[in-house]
Amino acid sequence: MEDCIFCDIVLGKEPCYKIYEDEFALAFLDIANDCSGHTLVIPKKHYVSVLDCEKSYLDAVMSAVQKVSNHYVKNCGFDGVNIMNASGDGSEQSVFHLHFHILPRKKNDGLHTFPKLPKNKQSLEKIVKKLKMSDII
Amino acid sequence: MEDCIFCDIVLGKEPCYKIYEDEFALAFLDIANDCSGHTLVIPKKHYVSVLDCEKSYLDAVMSAVQKVSNHYVKNCGFDGVNIMNASGDGSEQSVFHLHFHILPRKKNDGLHTFPKLPKNKQSLEKIVKKLKMSDII
Repeated sequence: MEDCIFCDIVLGKEPCYKIYEDEFALAFLDIANDCSGHTLVIPKKHYVSVLDCEKSYLDAVMSAVQKVSNHYVKNCGFDGVNIMNASGDGSEQSVFHLHFHILPRKKNDGLHTFPKLPKNKQSLEKIVKKLKMSDII
Repeated sequence: MEDCIFCDIVLGKEPCYKIYEDEFALAFLDIANDCSGHTLVIPKKHYVSVLDCEKSYLDAVMSAVQKVSNHYVKNCGFDGVNIMNASGDGSEQSVFHLHFHILPRKKNDGLHTFPKLPKNKQSLEKIVKKLKMSDII
């Protein structure tokens, strides 16, 4: 898509620090460089987010996420990973081309990656009634 | 697996606030109740994390993640979602049965879900040399 920095990276119009590539997906370092090995994994075809991504492409992207994650743990001295995605308005999504963040982790690295969330005032009983997908269970 | 709370939920030995279920995956509210609609999506078969999950099951879990996310945005008044996972030691994984968090988001909900990460001291040029999967590109 025009005016999409990640599409330009896929097309080679913009450089990247490439970690992994296959027919459907590309993984490269986040230029924020704010956590050693902070990596983005994207589909080569333009989708905005998980919400509009064709399932076959989502599977391909997750295959790349899994391969890179296992590479980091098995071959690069990391102990685990966090996988994160923001999809849609209000989610703090920054680039509107689907991407998963991989944050490689080490024991005792001192990071705290899960957000502090405010306690919800509604009961779980009320919430589940509103959100349950009752037609397909 | 024995002594796994999520396996017990799958087997019906423990209750849950069920949102969605199919042959391979189950989605239910996180009992932390710390963000309206905070949901966990798990495979019905026991895997520890993304690192050891069979690809077919990972695809099935992501299918459920995508369905629930779209349901929240299209039918429940949310604008987007964050999808989060912790895999492996050092990743702050709490329950050692693969699970994806879905945090439903609204514009101007005031949340900040991406972690604050320390600036890395190594250059991206050095990092990419260490982490690149050169054999498969």
